[in-house]
Amino acid sequence: MKMIKKERQKRLQDTINNNPFITDEELAEQFQVSVQTIRLDRLELSIPELRERIKNVAEKRFDDEVKSLPIDEVIGEIIDIDLDKNAISIFEVKKEHVFKRNSIARGHHLFAQANSLAVAVINDELALTAKANIHFTRSVKEGERVVAKAKVCDIHNEKDHTIVNVDSFVGNELVFKGEFEMFRNSK
Amino acid sequence: MKMIKKERQKRLQDTINNNPFITDEELAEQFQVSVQTIRLDRLELSIPELRERIKNVAEKRFDDEVKSLPIDEVIGEIIDIDLDKNAISIFEVKKEHVFKRNSIARGHHLFAQANSLAVAVINDELALTAKANIHFTRSVKEGERVVAKAKVCDIHNEKDHTIVNVDSFVGNELVFKGEFEMFRNSK
Repeated sequence: MKMIKKERQKRLQDTINNNPFITDEELAEQFQVSVQTIRLDRLELSIPELRERIKNVAEKRFDDEVKSLPIDEVIGEIIDIDLDKNAISIFEVKKEHVFKRNSIARGHHLFAQANSLAVAVINDELALTAKANIHFTRSVKEGERVVAKAKVCDIHNEKDHTIVNVDSFVGNELVFKGEFEMFRNSK
Repeated sequence: MKMIKKERQKRLQDTINNNPFITDEELAEQFQVSVQTIRLDRLELSIPELRERIKNVAEKRFDDEVKSLPIDEVIGEIIDIDLDKNAISIFEVKKEHVFKRNSIARGHHLFAQANSLAVAVINDELALTAKANIHFTRSVKEGERVVAKAKVCDIHNEKDHTIVNVDSFVGNELVFKGEFEMFRNSK
């Protein structure tokens, strides 16, 4: 009995290290235990709750790192960024972001999160979107938290164009997938 | 001399009939005369100024015609709509829609105008965007007026999917081009 708990806590710690934005509900499902058990495990392991974990990451400021736009013009909150490589942002879907009729998030908000992250990840003063190819793979509902992950795939410096792929998730589910062709210029 | 003016006024009338959203500046350029001349021509022909012309069209209400969403959820102002065929909307690019740094309109606003028009043109209670393939063909600046034209191209009723093409213009210039694959359901 003790062994099982010990092993679960070890795997729990690893899981949270890999994905700090996983919820207690998602962990409970993954480990087939109650949410209460996950909370007790976190207490014993001194792992703060999700809200605290996000706050800890968000306290790191990226103002100086983002070059292509002022950070308050990014839609969503940047959690991690490595210019011309990758970036992560979180966007909380609130009442003002959904269709009144069915509480489904409007596509342009998911697009705005992904597109502004694709701009922010570019290591140049000017970054504009030339083309985008996007898929909405699953409806997002009010109250859900969308984690967007941008990856710079291809830098054609000779053409001043860069491809940025953005995948957005709710939990482990892919909800949006976009390929952005960005025009960039150091002036 | 008189003849030339008469002919210009005739062509002016035709041009405005074809495109009620053309500005005096665009007309002046087209007819190689001053803006003042265009204004005088309009006065003589009793053609109201652009703002009035837009208001006249906008006074027609489309609340009852749009089925897929409440009309206040459309980004931009719907000027014309024929369900499952085509629709037109106008979006004025204001300060809050542009990058502070260069006054260029942010892509997600042009996307939002086009995407919400693609939703509105669908003759069903539920319309969601599945995929989109978009091109930003020319930067749009603060103060410009974007006219989006949606055209329903292909209705695959068996698959509950419909293709809507949206072309957006500033004057005669194409600024945005999008192909939207919409999921639809009469519920």
